[in-house]
Amino acid sequence: MTLLVVGSIALDSIFTPFGQTADALGGSAVYFSVAGSLLHPVQVVGVVGNDYPHDELGRLAARGIDWSGVERADGESFRWKGKYSYDLQSRETLETRLGVFADFQPRLPAAFRSARYLFLGNIDPDLQLGVLEQVQNPELVVCDTMNYWIQSKKAVLLQLLSRVDVLMVNDSEARELSGDWNIHRAGRWILAHGPKRVVIKQGEHGALLIEPKRTFYVPAYPMENVFDPTGAGDAFAGGFMAYLARTKSVAEDNVRRAMVYGAAMGSYAVEQFGIRGFDQVTLRDVELRVRAFQDLTHVSLAEALP
Amino acid sequence: MTLLVVGSIALDSIFTPFGQTADALGGSAVYFSVAGSLLHPVQVVGVVGNDYPHDELGRLAARGIDWSGVERADGESFRWKGKYSYDLQSRETLETRLGVFADFQPRLPAAFRSARYLFLGNIDPDLQLGVLEQVQNPELVVCDTMNYWIQSKKAVLLQLLSRVDVLMVNDSEARELSGDWNIHRAGRWILAHGPKRVVIKQGEHGALLIEPKRTFYVPAYPMENVFDPTGAGDAFAGGFMAYLARTKSVAEDNVRRAMVYGAAMGSYAVEQFGIRGFDQVTLRDVELRVRAFQDLTHVSLAEALP
Repeated sequence: MTLLVVGSIALDSIFTPFGQTADALGGSAVYFSVAGSLLHPVQVVGVVGNDYPHDELGRLAARGIDWSGVERADGESFRWKGKYSYDLQSRETLETRLGVFADFQPRLPAAFRSARYLFLGNIDPDLQLGVLEQVQNPELVVCDTMNYWIQSKKAVLLQLLSRVDVLMVNDSEARELSGDWNIHRAGRWILAHGPKRVVIKQGEHGALLIEPKRTFYVPAYPMENVFDPTGAGDAFAGGFMAYLARTKSVAEDNVRRAMVYGAAMGSYAVEQFGIRGFDQVTLRDVELRVRAFQDLTHVSLAEALP
Repeated sequence: MTLLVVGSIALDSIFTPFGQTADALGGSAVYFSVAGSLLHPVQVVGVVGNDYPHDELGRLAARGIDWSGVERADGESFRWKGKYSYDLQSRETLETRLGVFADFQPRLPAAFRSARYLFLGNIDPDLQLGVLEQVQNPELVVCDTMNYWIQSKKAVLLQLLSRVDVLMVNDSEARELSGDWNIHRAGRWILAHGPKRVVIKQGEHGALLIEPKRTFYVPAYPMENVFDPTGAGDAFAGGFMAYLARTKSVAEDNVRRAMVYGAAMGSYAVEQFGIRGFDQVTLRDVELRVRAFQDLTHVSLAEALP
């Protein structure tokens, strides 16, 4: 199954209590594809400026990431600068420079239009819709969004929502979108607006998969050393989608398995600055970590109480 | 196995976005024993004033709660008044009147001194130690505490910690006690100070069981209607301890099962004001809810990736 992602390709400058980085590879499409490519090839649609370190992107191609849908525009690349609190529980955006992202109009190469699995990363919902229009007959469409678009473009977002299979957001986004602080009612609200499934990411607490009749919970991997939370949600999405693409099934049990692969990828993302957490990770590492998740919630109940 | 709890017996006045209650039965020992008695008889040690509604306590005795260790002192009962935020995520204490609790010196009836399972609810650690001294040869000692005692009586608390088998606290308490915001490192810190196991309650996110070599996670039951979070942690403790007392084993697998029974009891506590959530609950209801927890985290991974 071909897997396509559209999203941001950024240069991130990040300050955490443990150090800092400047102009590191980042953005939703990058985290998604670096995580996802451990399981399945990924096609990327996005834009970079003429100041982007093409060589570094090029090296990632060897992992199975197809950057041929990334436009090189004249101007500065998208840059984000942020600072985390001492406990990594909150972050402040210090600067956002849209650069070439401001005028981005995604155009899919002909070879990308037959993609079967599509992830619409967190960008302007008008652009997400524009990409969706260009993909001929996707089997699975998953989209992300953020509070900024919920506030500024809710109508377009609702239009998009009616056309996607899965909405994947974090808890504050689910609350803001639905106007309901109860996360399970928020999930119902979203299901009533189009998607067949909702994935709600809860950071260090894990993630929920809410379906019309069942709910699944995958905890976060127990991490004694979290270094940089940036990109964990997009890495989760990459693991989730790439597992589904690799196993070619969106059946209920398989989607639960995909949640665990997503959670495993999220855990690698936070172990180092930027995408470095994935540098040494092998498929065998992923399999071991995924199995550790199973032990984390394993309990065998007796048939009946004594 | 005999199961003994010492803790507060209070009259709670609670304001939530959904209504209010005045002078309702509450306190850690009451939530613990109402939840626990669904699974096993509970002996209670505590104090009430001469204004306490004895009849209401008496009615609860029919469930298997032995109140004969509750002292009736001359004076006013312990009262707590609190108000929850619109999303139930935080609460403010409006008033605490210690009343007869201020001079409470727990004295165990002779018949209680041979208790095998002991829960030291959140009271002054000096009193918790005093109770521990009076129990002859407990097989399992679990204790709770709160930020107030961590700040004001840390030395006594650490002395107590070296003598208990399990510390059961919420995440903010674990962080404050250890001085570490990372919950898994906080758990390690606690293990290094005496307890063989740590249970960290995380409210709507569930609870962690941290042991030297393994970690277990039980999610919170998905609740679309949370009415009043008061007492959920003590109900959790009651379900946890009563399951262990009923099944007579503190083996690792059984402690994981006890976590699920604890989580089930926590979910009943929040469904109504005060202890009313337990009014209609039967053992069969508990069994069904416990099984629902299993589905919530159930995932079957393939032997190997395709």
